[in-house]
Amino acid sequence: MNIQGEMIIGRQAVRGSAGTLRAYNPTTRAEMEPEFGAASMDDLAAACLLAEQAFDAYRGQPLEQRARFLETIADRIMDLGPALIERASAESGLPAARLEGERARTCNQLRLFAKVVRDGHFLEATLDSALPQRTPPRPDLRMRKIGLGPVAVFGASNFPLAFSVAGGDTASALAAGCPVVVKAHNAHLGTSELVGKAIRQAVEDCGMPDGTFSMLIGTGFEIGLALVQHPVIKAVGFTGSRNGGLALVNAAQARKEPIPVYAEMSSINPFYLLPGALAAGGAKLAQGFVDSLTMGTGQFCTNPGLVIALAGPDLDVFRTAVTEALAAKGAGTMLTAGIHQAYVDAIARRSGLEGVELIAQGSTDGCGCAAQAALYQADAATFLSNSALEEEIFGPSSLIVVCKDDAELLEVTRHVEGQLTATIHATAADRDLAAKLMPTLERKAGRILFNGFPTGVEVSHSMVHGGPFPATSDSRTTSVGATAIERFLRPVCYQDVPAELLPEALRDENPLGLTRMVDGKLQ
Amino acid sequence: MNIQGEMIIGRQAVRGSAGTLRAYNPTTRAEMEPEFGAASMDDLAAACLLAEQAFDAYRGQPLEQRARFLETIADRIMDLGPALIERASAESGLPAARLEGERARTCNQLRLFAKVVRDGHFLEATLDSALPQRTPPRPDLRMRKIGLGPVAVFGASNFPLAFSVAGGDTASALAAGCPVVVKAHNAHLGTSELVGKAIRQAVEDCGMPDGTFSMLIGTGFEIGLALVQHPVIKAVGFTGSRNGGLALVNAAQARKEPIPVYAEMSSINPFYLLPGALAAGGAKLAQGFVDSLTMGTGQFCTNPGLVIALAGPDLDVFRTAVTEALAAKGAGTMLTAGIHQAYVDAIARRSGLEGVELIAQGSTDGCGCAAQAALYQADAATFLSNSALEEEIFGPSSLIVVCKDDAELLEVTRHVEGQLTATIHATAADRDLAAKLMPTLERKAGRILFNGFPTGVEVSHSMVHGGPFPATSDSRTTSVGATAIERFLRPVCYQDVPAELLPEALRDENPLGLTRMVDGKLQ
Repeated sequence: MNIQGEMIIGRQAVRGSAGTLRAYNPTTRAEMEPEFGAASMDDLAAACLLAEQAFDAYRGQPLEQRARFLETIADRIMDLGPALIERASAESGLPAARLEGERARTCNQLRLFAKVVRDGHFLEATLDSALPQRTPPRPDLRMRKIGLGPVAVFGASNFPLAFSVAGGDTASALAAGCPVVVKAHNAHLGTSELVGKAIRQAVEDCGMPDGTFSMLIGTGFEIGLALVQHPVIKAVGFTGSRNGGLALVNAAQARKEPIPVYAEMSSINPFYLLPGALAAGGAKLAQGFVDSLTMGTGQFCTNPGLVIALAGPDLDVFRTAVTEALAAKGAGTMLTAGIHQAYVDAIARRSGLEGVELIAQGSTDGCGCAAQAALYQADAATFLSNSALEEEIFGPSSLIVVCKDDAELLEVTRHVEGQLTATIHATAADRDLAAKLMPTLERKAGRILFNGFPTGVEVSHSMVHGGPFPATSDSRTTSVGATAIERFLRPVCYQDVPAELLPEALRDENPLGLTRMVDGKLQ
Repeated sequence: MNIQGEMIIGRQAVRGSAGTLRAYNPTTRAEMEPEFGAASMDDLAAACLLAEQAFDAYRGQPLEQRARFLETIADRIMDLGPALIERASAESGLPAARLEGERARTCNQLRLFAKVVRDGHFLEATLDSALPQRTPPRPDLRMRKIGLGPVAVFGASNFPLAFSVAGGDTASALAAGCPVVVKAHNAHLGTSELVGKAIRQAVEDCGMPDGTFSMLIGTGFEIGLALVQHPVIKAVGFTGSRNGGLALVNAAQARKEPIPVYAEMSSINPFYLLPGALAAGGAKLAQGFVDSLTMGTGQFCTNPGLVIALAGPDLDVFRTAVTEALAAKGAGTMLTAGIHQAYVDAIARRSGLEGVELIAQGSTDGCGCAAQAALYQADAATFLSNSALEEEIFGPSSLIVVCKDDAELLEVTRHVEGQLTATIHATAADRDLAAKLMPTLERKAGRILFNGFPTGVEVSHSMVHGGPFPATSDSRTTSVGATAIERFLRPVCYQDVPAELLPEALRDENPLGLTRMVDGKLQ
C-alpha cells in the first residue's frame, strides 16, 4: 500500500492543504517521501462535525458489532504486512523485532477491548427495584454507563503503534462507544497514514457510521490545541511530555465546558535495591537493570530513572557490574532529532550539577540520532535538596541515590513525586524495610513490582499504567489494560422509564446476559 | 448539648481566634447565639497535617472497623435528638418535619456506605494469574483501589444535614478510606458544630486515628480556598453555586499538583409535558408540578426550572391549574438573607426580559426571608436566543417554554446545557416523541425520569446525582448513591508482590470473601 501523504476525515482520505510536512529518518538523518498535507481548521471542523453526528449511531450499535469492529481493525492492521513494520522502523529508529512485538500488542489490545465490550461488565448495569409500599415510595431505578462523546487522541512518539493511531487510547475510546479524532504524531506520519487507513477500512467493512474515526495531520501545535478546544470533543487521551500534557490540560480546563484530559506525562520510576537483594546477586541484577534502562533506547515511560539503595560494599559490586554491562551496550537510535537533542542537553546539564557524579556510560557506536547511555550517582542529601534531579531525562539515563540508612531511604521515598511504577528488589531478609516502603509507594505509584523490571507493561485486567501527578493528569485511571475504558464513560440513571424505552442492558429480561448489580447484589 | 462556637481539629474542639461570626435565623431575621470563632491559617494547617498523618492508619483499618465507624457516626447524630432539628430549623428556615426526613436520609447514607464498605466491591479487586510459560512470561498482577488521600468537603446551604458536615461527600470519602476536613457552611454553624462533635465522638468511640475528621469555620472565602490549595488535600467535594464551584475547580487546577474537584453546581432540570400526558390529566400534573417546584422553597438542585411543552389547549388547561395551585401555596422561608436577596433580584431581572411573561405567582404570606413563587412563559424562539433564560434561579421559580411542534421541542432539547435530571411526562401515545428525546437527554442529564418529579433523590446503588457540565464539574461521577465512593479512589497494581506484603483483598485465599475479577471473570 502506497503512502499518499493523506489524513482521514470520516470515510475520506484527504490531502491537507494547510502547509506540508515530511517524516524524518532518525538513523539516516534524512527526510522521507512522500510529502504530507496538513489539516486546515476547516478540515478539523469537518472531522469533529462528523464525529458528533456519528456518536449516537455508533454508541447505539449492538455490543457484538462494536466488538467485531475492534477485531476488524486488528485484522486490517495485520493485513498491512511488513510494509507497516518497515515504515515504522524507518520513522522511529526502532528495530523491526521490537515493532513486530508492538504490533502484536496493539492488536491484542484491540482484541482485549473486543472481549471487554462483549462481556458488557463495563456498562456497570445496576438495578434497584421499586418499593411502592415504602414511605416515601422508592421508584424503579436503573443505571448504565454510556460514552462521553467524541474523544481526541494524540499519538505518542515512543510507541508508534501501541500508543498511537490505533493504540490503547483509541481502542478504549471506541470500545466505550466514543468516536475518535486522532492527531497523528509528526514523528511517524507514514505509519499513521497506514494505520489510519486500516481503521477507515474497518469502519467500511463493519458498516460503522461515517465519522466514527478521523485522523488529522498538523504542522504545529495549533491543530492539536484546536482539537482539544472544539466543543464536540468530550475527552482527550495523550501520552507525551509534561509540558505538552499540561498545555492540553489547561486548554481543556479553559473551555466553556471543561473536559477531562488523560495525559500520561512523566515518571522516573524509583527502583529500590534493598540490602538482601544486593547481597544475593548484585551482579545479575546489574545486567537486568541495564537491559531495562537501555530497552528501546531508554524511551519507555517506565524506564528506571532513579535507583535507590543503601551505601555499602554490595552496592559497590552492583555498580561495578553495571559499569561493565553498560559499556557493552550499543548506542540505540532515538526516535527523533528533537528527542535526541533534548537528551544530549539534559545529560550535559546533569553532568554539571554539584554533588552528582557520572559513574558509567554506554558505548558511542551508533549512527544518526544515537544516544550514549549515562548513569549518575548522588547522595540522598544532594537528591533531596535539588529538584532538578527529579526531572525525567527521556532516554537511557539513570541516577543512583545512595542512602546512608533506612531512615534516609524512607525520606527519599516520601520526597519523590507521583510515579507510574515503583520497583523493589528484595529477599525475605528485606521484608521489614519493604513493608515500611509499601504504604508510601502505594500513594506514590500506580504499579508496585517486586524483583522485576518496570519496562514491559502487560495488557490485562489488573494493569495500572497510571499514577499520581505528574505521572499522569488523573490518578484515578489507567491508560493500559481493560479498565482504561472507564476513562471515556459516564453513568446515566433511568427512573421509572417504560420498558420499551430502556436500553437493552437494563431490561428486566436481561437480553444481553450481563452480570448486573440488582438491589446491591451481583447477579 | 450546648453549642460552644467551636470547630473540630482532630480530637480537639477548638475555638478559632481569627475573627468571629454568628448564625442567622432567616425567619426572624435575627443573629443567633453563640458567637463562633473562625479558623486561622494555623488552624487549617493543623487540621490538614493531622489528616495527612491519619491517612495511612485510617485506610489501614479493617473494613469492618471502617463500616462500624460510619454506623457509629449515624448513631451519634441520632443521639443529638431534637436539639439538632431545632437548631437546624432555626438556622435554615426549613420545617422540622423536612429536617427529620433529612436526618433519616443522612443516617441512611452513612449506613449504606457502611454496607458498601463491608461488601468490599468498591475495592474492585482484580487478579491476573502469572503465565510463566508464555513468551514473554506474564507476571502475577493484582489490582485494588485505595483512597486518594485527605478530602476537603464543603457543606451546602440547602441540605444542612444530608449535604453538609456528615453528608454524602463526607460519608463516601470516609468510606473510601480518606480522612475528611470539612469547611462548615456559614448558614448553619450551630448545626455544623453539633454534627461535627457527633463525628468526633464516633472517632473516639471507634478508636479511629486523630485527624480522621476535622471541621473548620471561616469568616470569608479565604479559608475554603486555602483548604483546596493545601498540599495534603487530594480531592474536593462541593455542592453550591456555579461561581463557587468554578472558583474551587480553578484553584485546584492551579495547584502544583492539581486535584479533582467534585462540584455539583447548577441545573434547571428540563421537565417535558408531552401531548398525551397533558391530554390525560394536565390538572393533576399541575398540582404535582407545583408541589415539586415549591418543595423546600424551591431550593433543591433538582428543582424543575424549565418546563417544555407543545402549544395547545391541553397546555392551557395545565397552565390554568398551575396558576391556581401556585396561588394557594404559602411563601416558604429561604435559607439565608443572601439567597433570598439573590432570588428577589433574579426574579426582577427575569420579569424585565423581552418575550418573557410572568404567568403565575405564589402567595406572599411569609415572614422574614420568604420567597414568592414565580412562573414565567416564553416561546421557544425567545428561549433559544437568550442564554439568560438558561440560568438557574435558586428558588421557587420556573419557566414554561412553549414549542410550536416536535422539531422545535427537539431543538430546545439539543440547545440546553448539562443537567442533573430530565423528566418526561408521557403516555403510550407519546412514545415516538419520547424515543426521539432519549438519546439527546442521555447526553444532557445524569438522570432521566418518567411521569414523576425530579425533586427527591433516592439514595441507592443506581442513583446518579450528577451530569454534564455545568450541572457538575465531573460528569463521570455521582454525589448521591453507593457509587459516590468511586470519586475518592484510585487503582494500584501489585506485580509479583510477595504474599505477606499483599493487601488482604488480593491474597490468594481471599480472606475478605470478596467477589473478585480473576483472569477476566467475576468470581
